[in-house]
Amino acid sequence: MHDEFLRAAIAEAESGLAEGGIPIGSVLVHRGRILGRGHNRRVQQGSAILHGEMDALERAGRLPASIYRESVLYTTLSPCAMCSGAILLYGIPHVVIGENLSFKGEEELLHARGGRVEVVQDPHCQMLMRRFMEEQPGLWNEDIGI
Amino acid sequence: MHDEFLRAAIAEAESGLAEGGIPIGSVLVHRGRILGRGHNRRVQQGSAILHGEMDALERAGRLPASIYRESVLYTTLSPCAMCSGAILLYGIPHVVIGENLSFKGEEELLHARGGRVEVVQDPHCQMLMRRFMEEQPGLWNEDIGI
Repeated sequence: MHDEFLRAAIAEAESGLAEGGIPIGSVLVHRGRILGRGHNRRVQQGSAILHGEMDALERAGRLPASIYRESVLYTTLSPCAMCSGAILLYGIPHVVIGENLSFKGEEELLHARGGRVEVVQDPHCQMLMRRFMEEQPGLWNEDIGI
Repeated sequence: MHDEFLRAAIAEAESGLAEGGIPIGSVLVHRGRILGRGHNRRVQQGSAILHGEMDALERAGRLPASIYRESVLYTTLSPCAMCSGAILLYGIPHVVIGENLSFKGEEELLHARGGRVEVVQDPHCQMLMRRFMEEQPGLWNEDIGI
């Protein structure tokens, strides 16, 4: 199951890269069905808030709390404070993270608030980020507020 | 100073209310100049992520970290986990909150991470939220993931 949804998140990251954007993707999954697919749109839309996870949540649309509370959020990279905050706001109980070697977000906060956090350490996710961070360090720093 | 910018955030909240939306507004201020004005757009745009603060950040556009770090975010209501996470992501050091009696967000987290958090307890902000929560409790609960 993980493989299928993480692959969908990676496909989003690659779409973002092909658009000239930051290669981070995410999908929101409810009972085995993808409700929203997203990727970082800082470059494409000049957005300060559309990280991959935020874009997946936005594209899933307005949902009742009961849906979020049975959902899993897949993301290719460890979620930053903003995206972790959105996960906390909606009470999404389970996050599957492609990798956290390039960047480690607020996993400890999610865990401390009772969330289940799984890190896959997927080589494809790592390669996408490593290459991007080398090629565009300024853009990457902007995306994480540095 | 506070008065002027909090009034701008309240004007945003009232614009949202007039559009049939949730009456929460925010402005991002850098050295005495408003860079972005926003209000909650859950109803207007079917958005799961455009809380007032997020909308203000989005409308301010892509900014270097150095600007955020000298900015103040004004919001009519205590910021939820998502909006507080965005404040942490960008290192916005100072948040002025219209009121936190209707809802108390992640003020303690912001404070623990070194942020300055001021709560004005403005009667106008309180009145806007109290009325809205009484009239549309379901919509309000949706907005905070309940």
